[in-house]
Amino acid sequence: MTSPRARIAAALHNSARILLVNHVEPDGDTLGSTLALALALESLGKMVNVASEGGVPPAFAFLPGVDRVVRDLPAGAAFDAAVTMECSTPERCGRFAGAVLAAPLIIAIDHHESHIPYGHLEDWDPAAAAAAEQVADLIRELGVPLSPAIAGALLTGLATDTGVFRFPTVRPHSLRLAAELMEAGAPLAEIVAAVYEQRPLSANRLLGYALLRTAVAAAGAVAYSTLSEAVQRAAGALPDDGAGIVGALRTMKGVKVAILFEENGDDVRVSIRTRDGVRANAIAETFGGGGHPGAAGCTLPGPLADAVPQVLAAAETELRRDDRVAR
Amino acid sequence: MTSPRARIAAALHNSARILLVNHVEPDGDTLGSTLALALALESLGKMVNVASEGGVPPAFAFLPGVDRVVRDLPAGAAFDAAVTMECSTPERCGRFAGAVLAAPLIIAIDHHESHIPYGHLEDWDPAAAAAAEQVADLIRELGVPLSPAIAGALLTGLATDTGVFRFPTVRPHSLRLAAELMEAGAPLAEIVAAVYEQRPLSANRLLGYALLRTAVAAAGAVAYSTLSEAVQRAAGALPDDGAGIVGALRTMKGVKVAILFEENGDDVRVSIRTRDGVRANAIAETFGGGGHPGAAGCTLPGPLADAVPQVLAAAETELRRDDRVAR
Repeated sequence: MTSPRARIAAALHNSARILLVNHVEPDGDTLGSTLALALALESLGKMVNVASEGGVPPAFAFLPGVDRVVRDLPAGAAFDAAVTMECSTPERCGRFAGAVLAAPLIIAIDHHESHIPYGHLEDWDPAAAAAAEQVADLIRELGVPLSPAIAGALLTGLATDTGVFRFPTVRPHSLRLAAELMEAGAPLAEIVAAVYEQRPLSANRLLGYALLRTAVAAAGAVAYSTLSEAVQRAAGALPDDGAGIVGALRTMKGVKVAILFEENGDDVRVSIRTRDGVRANAIAETFGGGGHPGAAGCTLPGPLADAVPQVLAAAETELRRDDRVAR
Repeated sequence: MTSPRARIAAALHNSARILLVNHVEPDGDTLGSTLALALALESLGKMVNVASEGGVPPAFAFLPGVDRVVRDLPAGAAFDAAVTMECSTPERCGRFAGAVLAAPLIIAIDHHESHIPYGHLEDWDPAAAAAAEQVADLIRELGVPLSPAIAGALLTGLATDTGVFRFPTVRPHSLRLAAELMEAGAPLAEIVAAVYEQRPLSANRLLGYALLRTAVAAAGAVAYSTLSEAVQRAAGALPDDGAGIVGALRTMKGVKVAILFEENGDDVRVSIRTRDGVRANAIAETFGGGGHPGAAGCTLPGPLADAVPQVLAAAETELRRDDRVAR
């Protein structure tokens, strides 16, 4: 019996022109995993295109081989196979969904619980802490040795998708793979410095405002903060400066639900992080949003004064359900 | 030829009453490593005392076996051997230095570059990312299997002394050991939650004030912030709330030196973090302080308005030296 990964490796060996697709709003795991696979496939003489609707966020510009990530495919490009990376549905490929669905062979690699199979070949592994774990295995199946560049791209995916080994998804295999990637030349400390230690002054200021404006509800089980457009202007905030703020709210003692409200024109963007079994996605779905049990988001009409009490009420409803489940 | 660790294991097998000593201002590595070794030695029938001048900070109250850590030794206690954990000199044992030096056999386990040998037996290993790496080896030499409690204490030391695997000291061996400890029952995610995700609201507020007050000097190579006693009162700050703030300043793009100034009565406490080869200890030593190349501290007379420009000048001097070295 052949494993799914061995079948995928065989299919890739038999393909000449291969499309690799990141999910929209790309993160370190989708980018690192597609780049590692691209480098491995190129070493086998394949013609590879790496497509990312969101391009490459500045924090990942250091990734080896990043220059091959494109926002547009060459006119008339045709592929023997399309590989989607961390796309739980074809829609997560953004405007490349059409090119994926037109490919004669679709290969889906994903570790999200919410994945709905759509590939001719599927490597769906919810136990993996990152798609990079799956791709490391696949590259082994392909018979390609780990170059420093391939190892660096994989370790970027593994480290960023686990909050640098802090998330509950980390398993012993994740740590052993990280060790192996370091030995193959992946610079862990440099990856951490590039991704997490290049913050603009404005990002620290915005975090400062959010922390000072932190309020609690539900007897301390909910911590939330609001960033009006006026505050964002005062901080000189750049587009990505809000990333990570809701995670900082979640580190407070006793907090089970952390919520950040960001005013954005007439809308309010809501980021939700939870712990101890409280379902962030259940709160977000109340308002047409979605996500994972631990991390979700939604958008409500403004102003902040209208949006905040609605989301707090939904959070309290979910906390009561959680209490019932726990009893 | 016998390894140093094998000789230490043999000496501990031959000792009945053993004193284990933490360094002053104890951290997760000194506490986790002494507790792991205490549990291992007790399983061999030894009488063990664990002494810590600073007791156990609240963040580490979850450690297995933590109830055996004492701030005072029983009157007239005598020992066959004393083991110091991460104490680069006997003075780092605080008021237990006398008991250590009175022991017929002194065993020093340390991974600090700055260690000055003083033990009859020394396990000084600057390549170790944490003393927990050394103690894991020693417990293997002792022939004691890793119980979940021992593994949890060791993983707490390893994770906290590496910023959860973010520091440049992390090596493949560190990650493989972490995997082994998880398999022996150490709960990595629970350790992270206990140490890093129980922050008081006041700590987040104090961080918020510090981030909003961040200023830069030396064309952006220095980032600094000041916390007057008035600001600390406004935040409702508790004694340990300042921990980690200077690390947040260091994550800014282009910053090589991060400095936090905390008013404390008539004094100003100064915390310094650096990167890219700039020596934090050289800056701190200008004012009678000390530390490591990447992390150091000192105390100056107040007020803030006097202390700040002096330390900034010392930082700029060190930056100029660093520029010369780099050329």
